[in-house]
Amino acid sequence: MTQVPLLDQLIDALRCLPGVGQKTAQRMALQVLERNREGGRRLARVLGEAVERIGHCGRCRTLTEDPECAICRSGQRDDALLCVVETPSDLAAIETATGYRGRYFVMHGRLSPLDGLGPRELGLDELARRLDAGEVREMIIATNPTVEGEATAHYLAQLARGRGIRPSRLAHGVPLGGELEYIDRGTLAHAFGMRSEITD
Amino acid sequence: MTQVPLLDQLIDALRCLPGVGQKTAQRMALQVLERNREGGRRLARVLGEAVERIGHCGRCRTLTEDPECAICRSGQRDDALLCVVETPSDLAAIETATGYRGRYFVMHGRLSPLDGLGPRELGLDELARRLDAGEVREMIIATNPTVEGEATAHYLAQLARGRGIRPSRLAHGVPLGGELEYIDRGTLAHAFGMRSEITD
Ligand SMILES: [Zn+2]
Ligand SMILES: [Zn+2]
Repeated sequence: MTQVPLLDQLIDALRCLPGVGQKTAQRMALQVLERNREGGRRLARVLGEAVERIGHCGRCRTLTEDPECAICRSGQRDDALLCVVETPSDLAAIETATGYRGRYFVMHGRLSPLDGLGPRELGLDELARRLDAGEVREMIIATNPTVEGEATAHYLAQLARGRGIRPSRLAHGVPLGGELEYIDRGTLAHAFGMRSEITD
Repeated sequence: MTQVPLLDQLIDALRCLPGVGQKTAQRMALQVLERNREGGRRLARVLGEAVERIGHCGRCRTLTEDPECAICRSGQRDDALLCVVETPSDLAAIETATGYRGRYFVMHGRLSPLDGLGPRELGLDELARRLDAGEVREMIIATNPTVEGEATAHYLAQLARGRGIRPSRLAHGVPLGGELEYIDRGTLAHAFGMRSEITD
């Protein structure tokens, strides 16, 4: 009986990271062992702590090791705006790219009955209670423009309207810097139909 | 005083891996936490163990957690052939690409006096003792074709010759599939000078 060498175990374990195949994993393992053991030691410690301790914010459901995340705890955010996203990555993208200063709600998915993802699994009962509390005036629905994302957006919009809250969604259209001939037809048709008058 | 969120610590720690910038690190952290905690837990454990336990093989100096590595322990390798490489990555590349069945010696670098890397730091005294033992008949010098690599190859060749051991080096030339017009001039000149007769 032979034990699998630790180096091979490490190369294999690194492949849990997205975009890391055999060759990249080998390069990573050797580089850490040859040149950056201190970094590797720190990564092992922080990763181990993160997978055990990081859970979901009790208020917005994003990833945090605290009972409530930093955004929910902040006194500098507008409680009248609530942005609903599918994933913590979407939240991070909006935080990085925009000046949005409202609150968030993270569904960790979208309605997908075939995958067993219904309103309860997405925490939409929690979301409904939050809307019932009366502070939210606009709900920004930032689901992805997929079939399931659109269906989820429709469901969320009804949830909001039923409580007198204005639902809104991100604008679709030609990406900045995008060339018309390379835009998919659906997006181009939508952008054309939603054209606005040039007023300046 | 605010504690840095664990998620941000994890993103930062992942950047110790080669080729991983801020954006990739964020994607890795979120994906592991959202979709593969078991993989993350295993990576943390194996990486922690690897940085503590993996050292250098007592015989060939490659990376291993054992006193001697699997290649050195193997009874299926030819003791008359010894391949000297700069790094464990070079060893891995030769193992993957070739059918070589001899032994190895890993220098963990090349001669570089300005960086304080002399024969002692590269373990060349150990290598000399191994050559003195009398089993090695050919020493394959697989240093990189850099100025320092060539100087190191020259030093190694003398070490071998002084003991009646035949030194050899990898062939240089046009890479398979390489197009002549894109090959650097030095390589092309070398390949031209080393041309061989077509005998079939
Ligand atoms: Zn939160
Ligand atoms: Zn060895």
